[in-house]
Amino acid sequence: MEIRIIKSPAHGTLDILLRRKGSGASTPIESVDAVGLVQGRMIEMVCAADVAEKAVGVTVEDIRGNCPQNMVLLAIFGDTASVEAALEEIKRKEKEGTPEW
Amino acid sequence: MEIRIIKSPAHGTLDILLRRKGSGASTPIESVDAVGLVQGRMIEMVCAADVAEKAVGVTVEDIRGNCPQNMVLLAIFGDTASVEAALEEIKRKEKEGTPEW
Amino acid sequence: MEIRIIKSPAHGTLDILLRRKGSGASTPIESVDAVGLVQGRMIEMVCAADVAEKAVGVTVEDIRGNCPQNMVLLAIFGDTASVEAALEEIKRKEKEGTPEW
Amino acid sequence: MEIRIIKSPAHGTLDILLRRKGSGASTPIESVDAVGLVQGRMIEMVCAADVAEKAVGVTVEDIRGNCPQNMVLLAIFGDTASVEAALEEIKRKEKEGTPEW
Amino acid sequence: MEIRIIKSPAHGTLDILLRRKGSGASTPIESVDAVGLVQGRMIEMVCAADVAEKAVGVTVEDIRGNCPQNMVLLAIFGDTASVEAALEEIKRKEKEGTPEW
Amino acid sequence: MEIRIIKSPAHGTLDILLRRKGSGASTPIESVDAVGLVQGRMIEMVCAADVAEKAVGVTVEDIRGNCPQNMVLLAIFGDTASVEAALEEIKRKEKEGTPEW
Repeated sequence: MEIRIIKSPAHGTLDILLRRKGSGASTPIESVDAVGLVQGRMIEMVCAADVAEKAVGVTVEDIRGNCPQNMVLLAIFGDTASVEAALEEIKRKEKEGTPEW
Repeated sequence: MEIRIIKSPAHGTLDILLRRKGSGASTPIESVDAVGLVQGRMIEMVCAADVAEKAVGVTVEDIRGNCPQNMVLLAIFGDTASVEAALEEIKRKEKEGTPEW
Repeated sequence: MEIRIIKSPAHGTLDILLRRKGSGASTPIESVDAVGLVQGRMIEMVCAADVAEKAVGVTVEDIRGNCPQNMVLLAIFGDTASVEAALEEIKRKEKEGTPEW
Repeated sequence: MEIRIIKSPAHGTLDILLRRKGSGASTPIESVDAVGLVQGRMIEMVCAADVAEKAVGVTVEDIRGNCPQNMVLLAIFGDTASVEAALEEIKRKEKEGTPEW
Repeated sequence: MEIRIIKSPAHGTLDILLRRKGSGASTPIESVDAVGLVQGRMIEMVCAADVAEKAVGVTVEDIRGNCPQNMVLLAIFGDTASVEAALEEIKRKEKEGTPEW
Repeated sequence: MEIRIIKSPAHGTLDILLRRKGSGASTPIESVDAVGLVQGRMIEMVCAADVAEKAVGVTVEDIRGNCPQNMVLLAIFGDTASVEAALEEIKRKEKEGTPEW
């Protein structure tokens, strides 16, 4: 899994993500301070999405892209502190490597 | 094959799975306590789906990836004990490695 | 080529296959006792389909899935003995390795 | 490039090919004695198609894979001798390896 | 990540890019002196898009590949100096390799 | 990058290419003496398209095919001398390996 964070994302960057999010381009995302990005295999991404969802103050979306067939990009929208906390939690759970996230 | 379990999945996590399930986003899944995830080659996942279906108390769905015609993940919905039992059975059959699951 | 057989396939397993078969989800498959699965490259699958078709008592379908771009899954529906015979014949022809199946 | 020939193809085998041919499933193919199959990279298959087209008595079709926009296989329909001659010519040109087929 | 620049792009080259850009073929791009191209993994390209967007005087577009849902290339349109500056900034940030672009 | 030329392409070969060209199957291509084919990664292809476009007397089209996700086929239509000149120029620029084609 690869993890990155974009602080104060530019308008065009959000557009690229919002156009490709799984819930459809029309569902709005509230104003975001930061976007966390997590790329990995589909099974990892679903688990990471669950960890992030259970964190506070973030919205999680799967992003369609050029990833190989069983890879996905996950975008985590929210204020900077919440996104950082969610990403930290994802890293921590991954390190533990338990089958039950 | 990689196997994971998510207990008490978050609402957004279920959304990602339900949006991509093969039977269509409109077919409802009853309230789930746990989701088992199985990722592997198509031929393995079809066999794993059959093992899970023959277990008791779970609903099995194929989950699409980026392309609508893909199947990249098997999701097994149900109460925690049933999902764990189904995943155990899949692991056991895989270990046996017999051509007849 | 990888070959497997599912005896008395569960209803949900058949659904996954029938939703993805090349002749369309609406073409019915008569009640099946067993499903043979063959996964490999497109060119092998077409040849394997021909071998199976020439066997007696089976219906052959190509299944869309998560296989890489030039891989396909072939499903062979029929009674257990016929499916086993068709799979045996596919293995035999593959071993011979002649360009003319 | 991999090359195979199916003599007296079964009805279901032709169906798999005809459903996926580039000119559309509705364009008929006259009764065929044999089908030559060529699988390789896109650039190779376009060149092979041209060699086959310039041979006598065969019809050349591009066969799609899982994605509708893909071309994964070249199918050469015709009587057995013509298909064999076309495949021989493709092999010969490939061996020469000249940039001008 | 691979990075290139096309100065005074030909009409047909722009057509290939504009036909595949994420915001749709109908959204116009103002007359461009240069196009910067960045190819890499989805997560890298989203971050590179953000760096370029925050640079001055360029328009950033995601370019689709063969499948409509793919994003394989980032195109940065603008005058030559601005595109060069944006590409320099992308290279610089990549070299730093910080998780926060 | 792989480069080939087909002189006096057969009708069926042109059909395969025209059905898959980026500008749509309905845009006509004037009668062609030769087709140059260039296969490579998307970013290389856009640059090669620009080099070919700036050459005289050729029409450049991107062709959808079975190439992996970030690969494309470029077809260069025109009279034999012009296509050869365009391909020569593409090879020359590639050898130089400059970021500015």
